[in-house]
Amino acid sequence: MLLYDNAISGNCYKVRLLFSLLGIEYERREVSVIDRSNRAELLGDLNPGLRVPTLVLDDGRPLAESDAILVYFAEGTEYLPTDRYERAQALQWMFFEQYSHEPNIAVLRFWAHAEIKPDPREALAKFNGGLAALEAMERHLTGRDFFVGDRATVADIALYAYTHVADEGGFEIARFEAIGAWLERVRTLPGYVSI
Amino acid sequence: MLLYDNAISGNCYKVRLLFSLLGIEYERREVSVIDRSNRAELLGDLNPGLRVPTLVLDDGRPLAESDAILVYFAEGTEYLPTDRYERAQALQWMFFEQYSHEPNIAVLRFWAHAEIKPDPREALAKFNGGLAALEAMERHLTGRDFFVGDRATVADIALYAYTHVADEGGFEIARFEAIGAWLERVRTLPGYVSI
Repeated sequence: MLLYDNAISGNCYKVRLLFSLLGIEYERREVSVIDRSNRAELLGDLNPGLRVPTLVLDDGRPLAESDAILVYFAEGTEYLPTDRYERAQALQWMFFEQYSHEPNIAVLRFWAHAEIKPDPREALAKFNGGLAALEAMERHLTGRDFFVGDRATVADIALYAYTHVADEGGFEIARFEAIGAWLERVRTLPGYVSI
Repeated sequence: MLLYDNAISGNCYKVRLLFSLLGIEYERREVSVIDRSNRAELLGDLNPGLRVPTLVLDDGRPLAESDAILVYFAEGTEYLPTDRYERAQALQWMFFEQYSHEPNIAVLRFWAHAEIKPDPREALAKFNGGLAALEAMERHLTGRDFFVGDRATVADIALYAYTHVADEGGFEIARFEAIGAWLERVRTLPGYVSI
Protein backbone atom coordinates (compact mmCIF):
# COMPACT_ATOMS: atom_id res chain seq x y z
CA MET A 1 0.00 0.00 0.00
CA LEU A 2 1.04 3.56 -0.65
CA LEU A 3 0.24 6.34 1.84
CA TYR A 4 0.36 9.92 0.57
CA ASP A 5 1.59 11.29 3.83
CA ASN A 6 2.93 14.36 5.59
CA ALA A 7 5.29 14.16 8.54
CA ILE A 8 3.73 17.04 10.50
CA SER A 9 0.04 16.43 9.74
CA GLY A 10 -1.95 14.93 12.62
CA ASN A 11 -4.48 13.54 10.14
CA CYS A 12 -1.69 11.53 8.48
CA TYR A 13 -0.27 10.52 11.85
CA LYS A 14 -3.60 8.89 12.77
CA VAL A 15 -3.10 6.40 9.93
CA ARG A 16 0.58 5.80 10.74
CA LEU A 17 -0.35 5.23 14.39
CA LEU A 18 -3.08 2.68 13.64
CA PHE A 19 -0.84 0.89 11.12
CA SER A 20 1.87 0.65 13.76
CA LEU A 21 -0.55 -0.56 16.44
CA LEU A 22 -1.81 -3.25 14.03
CA GLY A 23 1.59 -4.09 12.49
CA ILE A 24 0.46 -3.14 8.96
CA GLU A 25 3.25 -2.49 6.40
CA TYR A 26 3.05 0.33 3.86
CA GLU A 27 5.11 2.71 1.77
CA ARG A 28 4.88 6.44 2.24
CA ARG A 29 5.26 9.39 -0.05
CA GLU A 30 5.74 12.81 1.49
CA VAL A 31 3.33 15.53 0.31
CA SER A 32 3.85 19.16 1.24
CA VAL A 33 1.15 20.90 3.29
CA ILE A 34 2.71 24.29 2.50
CA ASP A 35 3.12 24.20 -1.29
CA ARG A 36 -0.15 22.73 -2.53
CA SER A 37 0.40 23.54 -6.21
CA ASN A 38 0.80 19.86 -7.23
CA ARG A 39 -2.18 18.53 -5.28
CA ALA A 40 -4.57 18.18 -8.24
CA GLU A 41 -1.91 16.43 -10.33
CA LEU A 42 -0.90 14.14 -7.45
CA LEU A 43 -4.25 13.36 -5.83
CA GLY A 44 -6.90 14.46 -8.36
CA ASP A 45 -7.81 10.93 -9.42
CA LEU A 46 -7.51 9.49 -5.92
CA ASN A 47 -9.18 11.89 -3.50
CA PRO A 48 -11.90 14.46 -4.30
CA GLY A 49 -10.85 16.47 -1.24
CA LEU A 50 -7.20 16.65 -2.44
CA ARG A 51 -6.12 16.20 1.18
CA VAL A 52 -3.58 13.98 2.89
CA PRO A 53 -3.71 11.27 4.03
CA THR A 54 -4.74 9.53 0.84
CA LEU A 55 -4.18 5.81 0.70
CA VAL A 56 -3.82 3.53 -2.32
CA LEU A 57 -4.66 -0.06 -1.40
CA ASP A 58 -2.67 -3.01 -2.72
CA ASP A 59 -5.21 -3.52 -5.51
CA GLY A 60 -4.92 0.13 -6.59
CA ARG A 61 -8.21 1.36 -5.14
CA PRO A 62 -7.91 4.69 -3.32
CA LEU A 63 -9.32 5.62 0.09
CA ALA A 64 -9.33 9.07 1.65
CA GLU A 65 -10.33 10.98 4.79
CA SER A 66 -8.24 9.99 7.79
CA ASP A 67 -11.13 8.77 9.94
CA ALA A 68 -12.65 6.67 7.12
CA ILE A 69 -9.24 5.03 6.62
CA LEU A 70 -9.08 4.28 10.37
CA VAL A 71 -12.49 2.58 10.34
CA TYR A 72 -11.63 0.55 7.24
CA PHE A 73 -8.49 -0.93 8.79
CA ALA A 74 -9.89 -1.25 12.31
CA GLU A 75 -12.75 -3.48 11.17
CA GLY A 76 -12.32 -6.89 12.70
CA THR A 77 -9.69 -5.68 15.18
CA GLU A 78 -9.96 -4.56 18.80
CA TYR A 79 -9.87 -0.91 17.65
CA LEU A 80 -13.44 -0.98 16.25
CA PRO A 81 -16.16 -1.96 18.74
CA THR A 82 -18.32 -4.91 17.74
CA ASP A 83 -21.36 -3.47 19.52
CA ARG A 84 -23.52 -1.39 17.14
CA TYR A 85 -24.14 1.44 19.61
CA GLU A 86 -20.47 1.64 20.61
CA ARG A 87 -19.48 1.70 16.94
CA ALA A 88 -21.85 4.63 16.42
CA GLN A 89 -20.36 6.38 19.46
CA ALA A 90 -16.88 5.96 17.99
CA LEU A 91 -18.14 7.55 14.76
CA GLN A 92 -19.79 10.33 16.78
CA TRP A 93 -16.45 11.24 18.35
CA MET A 94 -14.69 11.05 14.98
CA PHE A 95 -17.19 13.44 13.40
CA PHE A 96 -16.79 15.66 16.48
CA GLU A 97 -13.04 15.57 15.86
CA GLN A 98 -13.30 16.63 12.23
CA TYR A 99 -15.96 19.30 12.84
CA SER A 100 -15.30 20.82 16.27
CA HIS A 101 -11.68 19.91 17.09
CA GLU A 102 -9.46 19.75 14.01
CA PRO A 103 -10.59 22.98 12.28
CA ASN A 104 -9.68 24.88 15.44
CA ILE A 105 -6.78 23.11 17.15
CA ALA A 106 -5.00 21.75 14.07
CA VAL A 107 -5.32 25.01 12.15
CA LEU A 108 -3.83 27.11 14.99
CA ARG A 109 -0.94 24.64 15.20
CA PHE A 110 -0.47 24.77 11.42
CA TRP A 111 -0.39 28.58 11.45
CA ALA A 112 2.27 28.47 14.18
CA HIS A 113 4.39 25.93 12.27
CA ALA A 114 4.04 27.75 8.94
CA GLU A 115 4.63 31.13 10.63
CA ILE A 116 1.34 32.44 9.22
CA LYS A 117 0.02 35.52 11.01
CA PRO A 118 -3.77 35.14 11.04
CA ASP A 119 -6.42 37.80 11.46
CA PRO A 120 -6.65 38.20 15.30
CA ARG A 121 -10.46 37.87 15.30
CA GLU A 122 -10.22 34.61 13.35
CA ALA A 123 -7.46 33.28 15.61
CA LEU A 124 -9.53 34.09 18.71
CA ALA A 125 -12.60 32.31 17.28
CA LYS A 126 -10.47 29.22 16.63
CA PHE A 127 -8.91 29.39 20.08
CA ASN A 128 -12.34 29.55 21.73
CA GLY A 129 -13.63 26.75 19.51
CA GLY A 130 -10.62 24.62 20.40
CA LEU A 131 -11.06 25.29 24.13
CA ALA A 132 -14.72 24.24 23.92
CA ALA A 133 -13.68 20.99 22.22
CA LEU A 134 -11.05 20.28 24.89
CA GLU A 135 -13.55 21.05 27.66
CA ALA A 136 -16.06 18.63 26.12
CA MET A 137 -13.34 15.97 25.98
CA GLU A 138 -12.30 16.66 29.59
CA ARG A 139 -15.89 16.29 30.83
CA HIS A 140 -16.34 13.03 28.92
CA LEU A 141 -13.02 11.53 30.03
CA THR A 142 -13.56 12.32 33.70
CA GLY A 143 -14.22 8.87 35.20
CA ARG A 144 -13.46 7.10 31.91
CA ASP A 145 -10.27 5.49 30.58
CA PHE A 146 -11.09 5.83 26.86
CA PHE A 147 -13.73 7.57 24.74
CA VAL A 148 -15.89 4.53 23.99
CA GLY A 149 -16.24 1.41 26.12
CA ASP A 150 -13.25 0.37 28.22
CA ARG A 151 -10.49 0.08 25.63
CA ALA A 152 -8.77 2.17 22.98
CA THR A 153 -10.70 2.54 19.72
CA VAL A 154 -10.41 4.52 16.51
CA ALA A 155 -12.09 7.40 18.38
CA ASP A 156 -9.07 7.66 20.70
CA ILE A 157 -6.62 7.50 17.81
CA ALA A 158 -8.53 10.22 15.93
CA LEU A 159 -8.68 12.55 18.94
CA TYR A 160 -5.16 11.82 20.17
CA ALA A 161 -3.50 13.02 16.95
CA TYR A 162 -4.02 16.76 17.38
CA THR A 163 -4.69 16.81 21.14
CA HIS A 164 -1.23 15.56 22.10
CA VAL A 165 0.37 18.42 20.13
CA ALA A 166 -2.26 21.06 20.95
CA ASP A 167 0.33 23.02 22.97
CA GLU A 168 2.03 23.81 19.62
CA GLY A 169 -1.15 25.75 18.76
CA GLY A 170 -1.17 27.63 22.06
CA PHE A 171 -3.37 25.41 24.24
CA GLU A 172 -2.31 24.62 27.81
CA ILE A 173 -3.04 20.90 27.80
CA ALA A 174 -1.59 20.54 31.31
CA ARG A 175 -4.74 22.32 32.57
CA PHE A 176 -6.84 19.30 31.56
CA GLU A 177 -6.26 16.49 34.05
CA ALA A 178 -8.45 13.78 32.56
CA ILE A 179 -7.10 14.50 29.08
CA GLY A 180 -3.53 14.27 30.42
CA ALA A 181 -4.13 10.83 31.95
CA TRP A 182 -5.83 9.64 28.75
CA LEU A 183 -2.93 10.88 26.56
CA GLU A 184 -0.60 8.77 28.71
CA ARG A 185 -2.89 5.72 28.26
CA VAL A 186 -2.70 6.07 24.47
CA ARG A 187 1.05 6.73 24.59
CA THR A 188 1.62 3.37 26.32
CA LEU A 189 -0.40 1.20 23.91
CA PRO A 190 1.74 -1.66 22.53
CA GLY A 191 3.03 -0.64 19.09
CA TYR A 192 2.66 3.13 19.73
CA VAL A 193 4.75 5.41 17.51
CA SER A 194 5.26 9.14 17.98
CA ILE A 195 4.27 11.70 15.39
CA MET B 1 -37.27 7.98 20.27
CA LEU B 2 -36.83 11.70 20.72
CA LEU B 3 -35.05 13.84 18.13
CA TYR B 4 -33.75 17.23 19.22
CA ASP B 5 -34.39 18.83 15.89
CA ASN B 6 -34.46 22.09 13.98
CA ALA B 7 -36.74 22.69 11.01
CA ILE B 8 -34.22 24.63 8.92
CA SER B 9 -31.02 22.67 9.76
CA GLY B 10 -29.82 20.40 6.97
CA ASN B 11 -27.98 18.26 9.53
CA CYS B 12 -31.30 17.56 11.27
CA TYR B 13 -33.04 17.03 7.93
CA LYS B 14 -30.61 14.19 7.12
CA VAL B 15 -32.01 12.23 10.07
CA ARG B 16 -35.66 13.05 9.25
CA LEU B 17 -35.05 11.98 5.64
CA LEU B 18 -33.49 8.63 6.55
CA PHE B 19 -36.23 7.96 9.12
CA SER B 20 -38.87 8.66 6.46
CA LEU B 21 -37.12 6.47 3.87
CA LEU B 22 -36.97 3.63 6.43
CA GLY B 23 -40.42 4.24 7.98
CA ILE B 24 -38.98 4.85 11.45
CA GLU B 25 -41.26 6.64 13.94
CA TYR B 26 -39.98 9.29 16.37
CA GLU B 27 -40.95 12.37 18.32
CA ARG B 28 -39.28 15.70 17.67
CA ARG B 29 -38.47 18.67 19.83
CA GLU B 30 -37.60 21.94 18.10
CA VAL B 31 -34.32 23.57 19.19
CA SER B 32 -33.39 27.09 18.07
CA VAL B 33 -30.27 27.54 15.97
CA ILE B 34 -30.38 31.30 16.59
CA ASP B 35 -30.77 31.55 20.38
CA ARG B 36 -28.28 28.99 21.70
CA SER B 37 -28.44 30.12 25.35
CA ASN B 38 -30.22 26.94 26.53
CA ARG B 39 -28.00 24.47 24.68
CA ALA B 40 -25.92 23.37 27.68
CA GLU B 41 -29.03 22.88 29.81
CA LEU B 42 -30.89 21.03 27.06
CA LEU B 43 -28.11 18.93 25.50
CA GLY B 44 -25.21 19.05 28.00
CA ASP B 45 -25.75 15.49 29.25
CA LEU B 46 -26.60 14.12 25.80
CA ASN B 47 -24.14 15.56 23.30
CA PRO B 48 -20.65 16.91 23.99
CA GLY B 49 -20.85 19.04 20.82
CA LEU B 50 -24.13 20.67 22.01
CA ARG B 51 -25.35 20.49 18.40
CA VAL B 52 -28.57 19.35 16.77
CA PRO B 53 -29.50 16.76 15.74
CA THR B 54 -29.20 14.91 19.03
CA LEU B 55 -31.14 11.69 19.34
CA VAL B 56 -32.33 9.87 22.45
CA LEU B 57 -32.95 6.20 21.72
CA ASP B 58 -35.93 4.31 23.16
CA ASP B 59 -33.76 2.99 25.99
CA GLY B 60 -32.60 6.52 26.91
CA ARG B 61 -29.11 6.30 25.41
CA PRO B 62 -28.09 9.40 23.43
CA LEU B 63 -26.49 9.55 20.01
CA ALA B 64 -25.15 12.66 18.28
CA GLU B 65 -23.53 13.90 15.06
CA SER B 66 -25.86 13.63 12.09
CA ASP B 67 -23.69 11.30 10.04
CA ALA B 68 -23.06 8.93 12.97
CA ILE B 69 -26.84 8.75 13.50
CA LEU B 70 -27.32 7.94 9.81
CA VAL B 71 -24.82 5.06 9.94
CA TYR B 72 -26.37 3.66 13.13
CA PHE B 73 -29.86 3.43 11.62
CA ALA B 74 -28.73 2.44 8.13
CA GLU B 75 -26.93 -0.67 9.40
CA GLY B 76 -28.68 -3.74 8.03
CA THR B 77 -30.65 -1.71 5.46
CA GLU B 78 -29.99 -0.94 1.79
CA TYR B 79 -28.65 2.50 2.78
CA LEU B 80 -25.38 1.11 4.22
CA PRO B 81 -23.27 -0.95 1.80
CA THR B 82 -22.42 -4.45 2.96
CA ASP B 83 -19.06 -4.37 1.16
CA ARG B 84 -16.26 -3.19 3.44
CA TYR B 85 -14.60 -0.93 0.84
CA GLU B 86 -17.93 0.62 -0.20
CA ARG B 87 -18.79 1.22 3.46
CA ALA B 88 -15.46 3.03 3.86
CA GLN B 89 -16.19 5.08 0.72
CA ALA B 90 -19.56 6.11 2.17
CA LEU B 91 -17.74 7.22 5.33
CA GLN B 92 -15.16 9.06 3.21
CA TRP B 93 -17.90 11.12 1.56
CA MET B 94 -19.58 11.78 4.92
CA PHE B 95 -16.32 13.10 6.41
CA PHE B 96 -15.85 15.16 3.22
CA GLU B 97 -19.36 16.54 3.80
CA GLN B 98 -18.68 17.58 7.39
CA TYR B 99 -15.20 19.00 6.69
CA SER B 100 -15.24 20.48 3.18
CA HIS B 101 -18.93 21.02 2.35
CA GLU B 102 -21.04 21.86 5.41
CA PRO B 103 -18.71 24.47 7.02
CA ASN B 104 -18.84 26.44 3.76
CA ILE B 105 -22.22 25.85 2.11
CA ALA B 106 -24.37 25.42 5.23
CA VAL B 107 -22.80 28.39 6.99
CA LEU B 108 -23.37 30.78 4.04
CA ARG B 109 -27.00 29.62 3.92
CA PHE B 110 -27.36 30.10 7.67
CA TRP B 111 -25.95 33.62 7.49
CA ALA B 112 -28.47 34.43 4.72
CA HIS B 113 -31.39 32.99 6.73
CA ALA B 114 -30.34 34.69 9.96
CA GLU B 115 -29.59 37.96 8.11
CA ILE B 116 -26.04 37.95 9.48
CA LYS B 117 -23.65 40.19 7.55
CA PRO B 118 -20.29 38.39 7.61
CA ASP B 119 -16.83 39.79 7.07
CA PRO B 120 -16.48 39.88 3.24
CA ARG B 121 -13.11 38.09 3.29
CA GLU B 122 -14.56 35.28 5.40
CA ALA B 123 -17.64 35.02 3.17
CA LEU B 124 -15.45 34.81 0.07
CA ALA B 125 -13.30 32.07 1.61
CA LYS B 126 -16.44 30.06 2.38
CA PHE B 127 -17.84 30.67 -1.09
CA ASN B 128 -14.63 29.41 -2.72
CA GLY B 129 -14.51 26.43 -0.35
CA GLY B 130 -18.13 25.60 -1.18
CA LEU B 131 -17.48 25.87 -4.92
CA ALA B 132 -14.51 23.50 -4.62
CA ALA B 133 -16.71 20.99 -2.79
CA LEU B 134 -19.44 21.23 -5.45
CA GLU B 135 -16.86 20.84 -8.24
CA ALA B 136 -15.47 17.71 -6.55
CA MET B 137 -19.02 16.31 -6.31
CA GLU B 138 -19.74 17.18 -9.96
CA ARG B 139 -16.57 15.39 -11.13
CA HIS B 140 -17.40 12.30 -9.09
CA LEU B 141 -21.06 12.16 -10.15
CA THR B 142 -20.28 12.50 -13.86
CA GLY B 143 -21.05 9.00 -15.18
CA ARG B 144 -22.38 7.82 -11.81
CA ASP B 145 -25.93 7.65 -10.43
CA PHE B 146 -25.01 7.81 -6.74
CA PHE B 147 -21.89 8.49 -4.67
CA VAL B 148 -21.06 4.89 -3.75
CA GLY B 149 -21.98 1.80 -5.73
CA ASP B 150 -25.15 1.88 -7.82
CA ARG B 151 -27.79 2.80 -5.25
CA ALA B 152 -28.54 5.51 -2.71
CA THR B 153 -26.60 5.26 0.54
CA VAL B 154 -26.06 7.36 3.66
CA ALA B 155 -23.41 9.28 1.67
CA ASP B 156 -26.11 10.57 -0.69
CA ILE B 157 -28.41 11.50 2.19
CA ALA B 158 -25.58 13.36 3.96
CA LEU B 159 -24.57 15.31 0.84
CA TYR B 160 -28.11 15.94 -0.39
CA ALA B 161 -29.15 17.83 2.76
CA TYR B 162 -27.24 21.07 2.15
CA THR B 163 -26.61 20.66 -1.60
CA HIS B 164 -30.30 20.82 -2.54
CA VAL B 165 -30.67 24.16 -0.72
CA ALA B 166 -27.22 25.54 -1.63
CA ASP B 167 -28.87 28.24 -3.78
CA GLU B 168 -30.08 29.78 -0.48
CA GLY B 169 -26.41 30.38 0.31
CA GLY B 170 -25.69 31.96 -3.07
CA PHE B 171 -24.53 28.94 -5.10
CA GLU B 172 -25.85 28.47 -8.66
CA ILE B 173 -26.59 24.74 -8.48
CA ALA B 174 -28.12 24.82 -11.99
CA ARG B 175 -24.52 25.18 -13.29
CA PHE B 176 -23.76 21.63 -12.10
CA GLU B 177 -25.42 19.15 -14.47
CA ALA B 178 -24.44 15.88 -12.83
CA ILE B 179 -25.37 17.22 -9.40
CA GLY B 180 -28.76 18.33 -10.77
CA ALA B 181 -29.55 14.86 -12.12
CA TRP B 182 -28.42 13.27 -8.86
CA LEU B 183 -30.57 15.62 -6.76
CA GLU B 184 -33.57 14.48 -8.82
CA ARG B 185 -32.66 10.82 -8.21
CA VAL B 186 -32.64 11.40 -4.44
CA ARG B 187 -35.86 13.43 -4.63
CA THR B 188 -37.70 10.48 -6.21
CA LEU B 189 -36.65 7.82 -3.67
CA PRO B 190 -39.71 6.08 -2.18
CA GLY B 191 -40.46 7.68 1.18
CA TYR B 192 -38.69 10.97 0.38
CA VAL B 193 -39.70 13.99 2.47
CA SER B 194 -38.73 17.59 1.80
CA ILE B 195 -36.81 19.69 4.31
